[in-house]
Amino acid sequence: MKEKSVSPTASLILIGNELLTGQTQDKNLHFIAHELFQMGITLEEVSVIPDDEDRIIETVNIHRKKYDTVFTTGGIGPTHDDITSLAVSKALGKKLIRNQEALQRLIDKYGEEQINEARASMADMPEGSTLIDNPISAAPGFQIENVYVLAGVPKIMKEMFAFVKKGLKPGQTKKVIQLVTSLKEGDVAGILTEVQNQFPEVEMGSYPHFYDENPHLKLVLRSTEEEALKQARDVLLENVSSLKVCNN
Amino acid sequence: MKEKSVSPTASLILIGNELLTGQTQDKNLHFIAHELFQMGITLEEVSVIPDDEDRIIETVNIHRKKYDTVFTTGGIGPTHDDITSLAVSKALGKKLIRNQEALQRLIDKYGEEQINEARASMADMPEGSTLIDNPISAAPGFQIENVYVLAGVPKIMKEMFAFVKKGLKPGQTKKVIQLVTSLKEGDVAGILTEVQNQFPEVEMGSYPHFYDENPHLKLVLRSTEEEALKQARDVLLENVSSLKVCNN
Repeated sequence: MKEKSVSPTASLILIGNELLTGQTQDKNLHFIAHELFQMGITLEEVSVIPDDEDRIIETVNIHRKKYDTVFTTGGIGPTHDDITSLAVSKALGKKLIRNQEALQRLIDKYGEEQINEARASMADMPEGSTLIDNPISAAPGFQIENVYVLAGVPKIMKEMFAFVKKGLKPGQTKKVIQLVTSLKEGDVAGILTEVQNQFPEVEMGSYPHFYDENPHLKLVLRSTEEEALKQARDVLLENVSSLKVCNN
Repeated sequence: MKEKSVSPTASLILIGNELLTGQTQDKNLHFIAHELFQMGITLEEVSVIPDDEDRIIETVNIHRKKYDTVFTTGGIGPTHDDITSLAVSKALGKKLIRNQEALQRLIDKYGEEQINEARASMADMPEGSTLIDNPISAAPGFQIENVYVLAGVPKIMKEMFAFVKKGLKPGQTKKVIQLVTSLKEGDVAGILTEVQNQFPEVEMGSYPHFYDENPHLKLVLRSTEEEALKQARDVLLENVSSLKVCNN
């Protein structure tokens, strides 16, 4: 827990009124968090903010200076509430231009006669951006400096993330060991603290949840140090009765 | 979109490494966002941060000065990684004390002999806190000034929120009209912009999604002004072919 992270850092900004009004259950956080974890990149923070230009500019500017990589999702479609590209341009002090390669992709997908101003506006992005492929609906995301701007629709976001992933610098991957017990947190807290102090390089989490109305407790150990991880597991197994290992 | 919010504001801080490592799919954001929306309270921002004392202190202090009400979830159990109560105390410059009423509830629930130091520590909270009932596992959440500290386990969080809700000052509730079309965003973007400009008091969102691999488009209108809301709906129905109303 206390170890300083040496892995690359990232943040995620989920943009959309639909998330803050409880209309939509977000699925992007869990997907991106899991992908980054697998790559050894530490997701340090997630912000969920509305489709509001000032709020996007402010949040992007705070995050891009603080973290190695910033992802945004949402707000890059053709409608009036899609203001992410403009806001990111302003945050970075870049001109918003119509990217000709992006425009061509839209023409190829929809046909010239279907490209009204709204559709064409999906090719608007900060000058100097690199396109992020969208094999589903053509309109690309973009990368500018350390900011990756992805679609909000999960199906499209996943494809964009798969494209982006190839270019991300991975960190040292953490190994994970999960254990379960039917004991309560209060029964194992003492030994957990002892083991945590003994193995500071292992991040130990304790997560109670309910399954079929019955409380269960999951213990999760994460570390880049495989040997310490296994030792911590073994100390727990010796000292906590009824503890079972979910993986090796 | 551009109207200034006059409703009470809130923010939510989700605390937990399990969310940022992709281990757990968050369910609390959607629930709390929906509840607040129903009460006419504007959820302005959500932050997801790790179980890290400095990060909790920093985030709580930013949010509590910016918003009328701040909710946190997670980190109030008995284990070493449960540091929310301490961090919130520090953020507010309050002493962390053992609340005797909270302790009594734990004793009543578990029996005196089961109250080890770890369990008893769940009664530690900032001096001057008001307890938030937990009918499931007894250990209460707490309110101190404008900060409401809730459990992370969704089942318990929901009960705590139901308790807290009774004391929250509601705002003017927004009515919602949802419409669907099989048209694409690019086909309706022009008329949407026109209608948005005509009815600035109606917040209009456009949300494409996939259903059985087919793209669908949902338009959502939200407003405290019911008359304007219905007029905006009618203008859309007149001008967008194939548009269907999901509710009245």
